[in-house]
Amino acid sequence: MLYLVGLGLNDEHDISLRGLEIVRRCEEVYLEAYTSVLTVPVARLEALYGRPVTVAERDFVESAIEPVLERARTAEIALLVVGDPFGATTHCDVLARAKALGVQTRVVHNASIMNAIGCCGVQLYRFGEAVSVPFFTDSWKPASFFDKLEANASLGLHSLLLVDIKTREPTLPSLARGRPVYLPPRFMTVRQAVGQVLEIAATRPGSGVGATSRAIGVARVGTESQVCVHGTLGELRSVDFGPPLHSLVLLGAMTEVEEQIVDVYVRTVSVTEARAQGGETRRKLLEPSRASGLALGARADICMCNE
Amino acid sequence: MLYLVGLGLNDEHDISLRGLEIVRRCEEVYLEAYTSVLTVPVARLEALYGRPVTVAERDFVESAIEPVLERARTAEIALLVVGDPFGATTHCDVLARAKALGVQTRVVHNASIMNAIGCCGVQLYRFGEAVSVPFFTDSWKPASFFDKLEANASLGLHSLLLVDIKTREPTLPSLARGRPVYLPPRFMTVRQAVGQVLEIAATRPGSGVGATSRAIGVARVGTESQVCVHGTLGELRSVDFGPPLHSLVLLGAMTEVEEQIVDVYVRTVSVTEARAQGGETRRKLLEPSRASGLALGARADICMCNE
Repeated sequence: MLYLVGLGLNDEHDISLRGLEIVRRCEEVYLEAYTSVLTVPVARLEALYGRPVTVAERDFVESAIEPVLERARTAEIALLVVGDPFGATTHCDVLARAKALGVQTRVVHNASIMNAIGCCGVQLYRFGEAVSVPFFTDSWKPASFFDKLEANASLGLHSLLLVDIKTREPTLPSLARGRPVYLPPRFMTVRQAVGQVLEIAATRPGSGVGATSRAIGVARVGTESQVCVHGTLGELRSVDFGPPLHSLVLLGAMTEVEEQIVDVYVRTVSVTEARAQGGETRRKLLEPSRASGLALGARADICMCNE
Repeated sequence: MLYLVGLGLNDEHDISLRGLEIVRRCEEVYLEAYTSVLTVPVARLEALYGRPVTVAERDFVESAIEPVLERARTAEIALLVVGDPFGATTHCDVLARAKALGVQTRVVHNASIMNAIGCCGVQLYRFGEAVSVPFFTDSWKPASFFDKLEANASLGLHSLLLVDIKTREPTLPSLARGRPVYLPPRFMTVRQAVGQVLEIAATRPGSGVGATSRAIGVARVGTESQVCVHGTLGELRSVDFGPPLHSLVLLGAMTEVEEQIVDVYVRTVSVTEARAQGGETRRKLLEPSRASGLALGARADICMCNE
């Protein structure tokens, strides 16, 4: 049996009781570690779950997982996934390959950014298509994601921008030599995402998306250092959201209730504010604080204006 | 401190370790029981959590919760929510009211239908706006949800249809008497939802949504008796999905990977098939089976064609 177990968004304590019972009885436990990341080292998972956890890199999951699936015909094996198992195409593909090999599969769901983003105060059912924002290079600046932002905006819908992460990127020369050497992990920030959105917007004067569009930048959703900051894209560009993971919500038409929740819970920033309080804001964004609590509590922590 | 703790989609074992630690130390624990329902009685939650759990009906949460919020200034109080706390506007409203009273709040995320629907084999980031389908009456048949289906379809996006549930609906005469008498709970089925969609479609010949549109009906997502059945709306109308909760996905343009996953994991039904195997299908849909496992495993249970 192959189990795909969602771990949720924060640390080893976000696994469900159902998931924990399964992991504790599995003979082999793998952690898919390239479509997302936890806030804690693997050792913390191993300590709580009472099982050695093998980190499964991209090349392993995509090309070398068949032997694991073969063993899953007769053994109980778990693949741990940050967030929900259905958050990434990779996991559906693993399930399809397991099925093709006649391996039984079970999925244990958990929170993912796709539903936890509701923490920024706007309604999940008012989001349009989610949008992935890849790191631009000097020679590669795909604008397809911007088309989706425009389509959602034209319907008055919010857009969730899932920003790029590169956890194990080989250098080109090392690839040429056939002995890959990996770059340090890179996580796109809200600032970088906003920069890329505005770069495309500058080439499309007629579009409904630009520096004055309202958005909410979020970081470390579901953790005690979670922050959400509301402003225009132009304003959010000057806000430091601290460590990863970041996401961005481009706001569509707002309902009265949404405006109220955002007003009460989400710190609204302006360029002046950001400059004046930049140091303070950065400190608060960078330091996880028990007092700040999870989700909305954490946001309240930087809503000095609302205390 | 007021905690909003997501319980996930199935039973008492889907709470996260973080959520359980919090609930076990709370002085008062409430269960919001009208925007969704668990598959187990409250007693099962009380036994595992080691706390008495008070069921909070709609009128209580919407009109009478202030005293609870007042006590949350000095006591630790938990409001348990099926799925994720941000799945319903109600919970955002409770958080806003708590905040207005100066009560600290924390949210513990969990899976909700908004992300678990990925279990039907199509990609979450390819869904457009989610659509709520209310029970039609003889005199009230709102078509606004159909406009959203058309908008998503025009963009090639999938639509998640969240079907109506009425857990505590007073009879009109009893309201008139001022002493409400409540009807038994009602849960919309996939068949009813499909019927209402096709009823509107019949009045809009030009629309891209009709009896030949492809869809996937799902029931009891995240439980061991979960089922997903793929077919046209016309075909799904003749499939019995068994006990609640049901949801429906109207398919947009399908990617190659999505077609592959649906082909491997989701039973595709045709009218002939449904009629010929109706009894058999019903039996399988209605009987939860340990062997069938969660999510995809459960679907495999009715994929005889794929075994």
